[in-house]
Amino acid sequence: MQLGMIGLGRMGANLVRRLTKDGHSCVVYDVNAAAVKALAGPDIRRAASLNDFVAKLSHPRVVWVMVPAGVTGKTISDLVPLLAVGDIIIDGGNSYYRDDQVRAKALKLRGIHFVDCGTSGGVFGLERGYCLMIGGDDDVIRHLDPIFKSIAPGIAAAARTVGRDDAAGTEEHGYLHCGPVGAGHFVKMVHNGIEYALMAAYAEGLNILKHADVGLRSRTQDAETTPLRDPEAYQYPIDIGKVAEVWRRGSVISSWLLDLTAAALVEDADLKQFSGRVSDSGEGRWTTLAAVDEGVPAPVISAALFGRFESQGEANYADRILSAMRKQFGGHDEKQTDTS
Amino acid sequence: MQLGMIGLGRMGANLVRRLTKDGHSCVVYDVNAAAVKALAGPDIRRAASLNDFVAKLSHPRVVWVMVPAGVTGKTISDLVPLLAVGDIIIDGGNSYYRDDQVRAKALKLRGIHFVDCGTSGGVFGLERGYCLMIGGDDDVIRHLDPIFKSIAPGIAAAARTVGRDDAAGTEEHGYLHCGPVGAGHFVKMVHNGIEYALMAAYAEGLNILKHADVGLRSRTQDAETTPLRDPEAYQYPIDIGKVAEVWRRGSVISSWLLDLTAAALVEDADLKQFSGRVSDSGEGRWTTLAAVDEGVPAPVISAALFGRFESQGEANYADRILSAMRKQFGGHDEKQTDTS
Amino acid sequence: MQLGMIGLGRMGANLVRRLTKDGHSCVVYDVNAAAVKALAGPDIRRAASLNDFVAKLSHPRVVWVMVPAGVTGKTISDLVPLLAVGDIIIDGGNSYYRDDQVRAKALKLRGIHFVDCGTSGGVFGLERGYCLMIGGDDDVIRHLDPIFKSIAPGIAAAARTVGRDDAAGTEEHGYLHCGPVGAGHFVKMVHNGIEYALMAAYAEGLNILKHADVGLRSRTQDAETTPLRDPEAYQYPIDIGKVAEVWRRGSVISSWLLDLTAAALVEDADLKQFSGRVSDSGEGRWTTLAAVDEGVPAPVISAALFGRFESQGEANYADRILSAMRKQFGGHDEKQTDTS
Amino acid sequence: MQLGMIGLGRMGANLVRRLTKDGHSCVVYDVNAAAVKALAGPDIRRAASLNDFVAKLSHPRVVWVMVPAGVTGKTISDLVPLLAVGDIIIDGGNSYYRDDQVRAKALKLRGIHFVDCGTSGGVFGLERGYCLMIGGDDDVIRHLDPIFKSIAPGIAAAARTVGRDDAAGTEEHGYLHCGPVGAGHFVKMVHNGIEYALMAAYAEGLNILKHADVGLRSRTQDAETTPLRDPEAYQYPIDIGKVAEVWRRGSVISSWLLDLTAAALVEDADLKQFSGRVSDSGEGRWTTLAAVDEGVPAPVISAALFGRFESQGEANYADRILSAMRKQFGGHDEKQTDTS
Repeated sequence: MQLGMIGLGRMGANLVRRLTKDGHSCVVYDVNAAAVKALAGPDIRRAASLNDFVAKLSHPRVVWVMVPAGVTGKTISDLVPLLAVGDIIIDGGNSYYRDDQVRAKALKLRGIHFVDCGTSGGVFGLERGYCLMIGGDDDVIRHLDPIFKSIAPGIAAAARTVGRDDAAGTEEHGYLHCGPVGAGHFVKMVHNGIEYALMAAYAEGLNILKHADVGLRSRTQDAETTPLRDPEAYQYPIDIGKVAEVWRRGSVISSWLLDLTAAALVEDADLKQFSGRVSDSGEGRWTTLAAVDEGVPAPVISAALFGRFESQGEANYADRILSAMRKQFGGHDEKQTDTS
Repeated sequence: MQLGMIGLGRMGANLVRRLTKDGHSCVVYDVNAAAVKALAGPDIRRAASLNDFVAKLSHPRVVWVMVPAGVTGKTISDLVPLLAVGDIIIDGGNSYYRDDQVRAKALKLRGIHFVDCGTSGGVFGLERGYCLMIGGDDDVIRHLDPIFKSIAPGIAAAARTVGRDDAAGTEEHGYLHCGPVGAGHFVKMVHNGIEYALMAAYAEGLNILKHADVGLRSRTQDAETTPLRDPEAYQYPIDIGKVAEVWRRGSVISSWLLDLTAAALVEDADLKQFSGRVSDSGEGRWTTLAAVDEGVPAPVISAALFGRFESQGEANYADRILSAMRKQFGGHDEKQTDTS
Repeated sequence: MQLGMIGLGRMGANLVRRLTKDGHSCVVYDVNAAAVKALAGPDIRRAASLNDFVAKLSHPRVVWVMVPAGVTGKTISDLVPLLAVGDIIIDGGNSYYRDDQVRAKALKLRGIHFVDCGTSGGVFGLERGYCLMIGGDDDVIRHLDPIFKSIAPGIAAAARTVGRDDAAGTEEHGYLHCGPVGAGHFVKMVHNGIEYALMAAYAEGLNILKHADVGLRSRTQDAETTPLRDPEAYQYPIDIGKVAEVWRRGSVISSWLLDLTAAALVEDADLKQFSGRVSDSGEGRWTTLAAVDEGVPAPVISAALFGRFESQGEANYADRILSAMRKQFGGHDEKQTDTS
Repeated sequence: MQLGMIGLGRMGANLVRRLTKDGHSCVVYDVNAAAVKALAGPDIRRAASLNDFVAKLSHPRVVWVMVPAGVTGKTISDLVPLLAVGDIIIDGGNSYYRDDQVRAKALKLRGIHFVDCGTSGGVFGLERGYCLMIGGDDDVIRHLDPIFKSIAPGIAAAARTVGRDDAAGTEEHGYLHCGPVGAGHFVKMVHNGIEYALMAAYAEGLNILKHADVGLRSRTQDAETTPLRDPEAYQYPIDIGKVAEVWRRGSVISSWLLDLTAAALVEDADLKQFSGRVSDSGEGRWTTLAAVDEGVPAPVISAALFGRFESQGEANYADRILSAMRKQFGGHDEKQTDTS
């Protein structure tokens, strides 16, 4: 079927490629004309403007919006006046599900359908397919099924789960209608919250392995440094890259994130290109907010999130308060350098 | 080559099966005669006693000990007097690496080699192969290479990591000599620490999804219950099993643990057979101790560990202290039942 | 000066007593007529209805609303139509500061001033005075100064902070104008977030002391119980009540919460009257939400919050997922009883 | 009675001053001759060497060792050969209670008594008295009672706990015999673990208040910065020093640590003299280790500990792993500067 794509960044462009490869036709547009120009292929029609974009789409139009979360609102606002009753907007980005709820309500007044679609897969999605978490009305989602099926990885992407009976649901193809509007981005939000914690789990573990040789290093002896009680127990210089690789086969903790970690360590064994400032892009925060609202504990996911804030320097004022207290009650001066 | 296996539980028996299938010969023994009797096959010789077991092995003997962590010490103590200079003991269980260090030193005085081998793979190892994390002296590990190679999953068990050059290290076959004695169990310990956190990450996330419908449920209105501010934002009854399944294909959080979670939810969608008391078996604790000794933060792994302690009821006294404080300063009585 | 109090629960009634003792006159009202009847004294005028209440107040009226957070909105809605331009509403409860912002805007359109006043002190406030954290417009707060001064503990309630110069700000009397509308409840919210964490700090520590005798108790020996490696290191039956008491004098961790803990342990050394279900009343949640919004780490406060959710049973589904995973990969059955 | 003090740092010297002021006589020694010379007063006899020190003490000698944890072992080793059967060594420093257990056993073979005494009070102890947590044999502790009574703050240091009956135990004077050898340092260890968490609670809360104005600051708009959804909700420039001060009177979170925080903020409102590198000195680590050994959750105390490790830069490798993963799956480059 025909689909219009607004936003031709890495994700949007690859979605178009994956769709047209599977027989769909696409109309494409981006505020950046160069991005439009760069995307060519059979069944791809390029639009010079939003008006042109809308004009090239047959009714009922299906428009997939794949732009940074910060500009989704404006993009949809610009688009809506050009659409007609019965048209469909799919927000494939990382929007906050509460924004979906507000947007869908406003669009419904104009007779336009809204679908939220959490899209996971990163830079590998073109080849691997994208995992889709979808929210919206039943009939609209059913109408869009051919689109989702083409984008998703397909049933062969993983071994079948033991115990499942014959009729495969769409979840086995890698896409799922999760519920009413917002449900898709809600599930994607939690997906990313889990992702934060999985990443932190590997990072913490590898950090512990990296420091398994602290007993071999001489350490400052002063009142502000806790002595290592058993230096002989920490004399292992571990090759982190090899450990990441060996865990990929047969271990309980094998995963796609571990595959990527192993790849990163092959590229740059000491990770010298990185400073350790880790951004966060919203979903980890929203997952924590949801846990708090629901009254459900999320100590692991929130610890992962707070670790990112700390990497951004945001604990600094708190840490200075701690130093000030220690100075007050114990006369401790801050230690300025650390040889460990 | 020939290997003697002591301990024919699920893990030991499957290791023997995997070894003999690959051309090795095994002598097997277990304190439980029924377990010995149950294990039959070409190239498997059963021993009636520890003496018989040792007698059936050719010198230099290779003995793999695969017994619960609590009895490893006793098993090795019983075995050692029967061994000779040059024999090798492999501890394949989940021993604490510090015990390895002590044991290896004592054995070295008698001319016996000690190898620690962290073995991951669980009940699926027979088929999938086991990921092996090995510690010990170079020449001994080299001598045992055919054993490890047969047990490990092999290079085909995962797609090759992008960027690796031609010469595949053993880590690409799924086994790794991590360093001197103890290094194998150290790496396995951290592996399990990571495992705790990965598991908790999925569990927390799915719990948040499970409660995404709290806005649909009526909640008590009293001073001891925090009201849900935005009930309309939490009206998603999510099918957790389908979500686990859809994430298996194309998502960033696909993993073997997720595969197992999906399988568990197919078997028992409501997990009614479980009460939620989660045991811990040592490695998560030891990983946390290592992080503390090294002075390295492990907020995620430790949160996962403490979550297990809480599931075992070990926060109860602390919680009663909290209730007592609240009663003191605010006159708050404990709420005895909860309808949420 | 004259003040009207709506809500004659423990807090409201004691505020009235404290105000009238210091020369102010109060008009009092509560939806519960018995509560109105119970409060008598010189300078206290009881109102039979909201209309009566408003009629008894001189213009510009000062109305302090001291009702449970859940009914603050309704109480103010009922009150507003009876008020006139220039009247002042003080919300002394534990409202969410964002609600203040909305309310103040709506009231301003009617010419009514809104002041938010976080009030800490619990059941001891009548005697000790209440710590007040206030938000609102400068001139309004200045007008209300005599009220706040009478309610607050006064400068003698604590030794003067070393280094402060002669001119004592109101903060040294125990009340503070923190900023524009909402600032008072914002500071009170964080106060309570800190309170959660302080309480959890003591509770965790005392729990560790309570278990300092685990080496004296026999423990199950099975694959699902981690053995205690050094039982001889944990043979201290500690008297928790005496420890709480000794820390009250001269220690770094002396505090009012510790005083209360010591009192609770005198009353009921084993805390048998408590089951350990700890409610939370909103502020701990809101503090965590604020930290997340601000991008500031709050691992300690959030851990305290999540500990309460766990005490309420809200980790149960997550824990059952963990048990299900362990069953899948390791064949582990849940341990149903625990002797430890 | 007579007491010998080894170690005349701030703590040791002040203990001597407090003891002699209360009628005891002291023999004093320090490896640093200048420290010995600096301490003068009636009832203080200065020793020129360890031999001289021991010679000046009457039998049975009472020796209080007050030296940094790292040199306690050596100090006691040097001292022991000079002592006689029946002499008493008190370790008043922050030793690990497990070391006490080992030392006491070795000393018992020589007929020397060992007492461990956790001493809290910091630089204010001379005036306020020190809170003492004591481990050792009953008769020895009883013998030393006059010493402990003089050092402790005394019953007047705090209001009596409501509900206590007439007979005041020593805990009401600020010292407590907690149990056999090691129990004193065990309780002191947990005291410090709690201290870490209390400090972190205040620091986190004040950090959240410090950032309550993020909505007033312009923030970068890019894919690597999560936008603030409700800038209007975070427009409070809070005076942190005034908040710390106001909480000192009447609030639930008043404490001695808060008093010190208020004092620190009077001295240096912006805490500019501190960089935020927070040392840890062992007890927080040991408390966490004890919790793990006991199988008791300590999420709050451990989060406080890990926060210190993070302030020391020890999360950096883990953070670089996270950046490497994000680069792999999402093509995200690290953001090098942050305007927030």
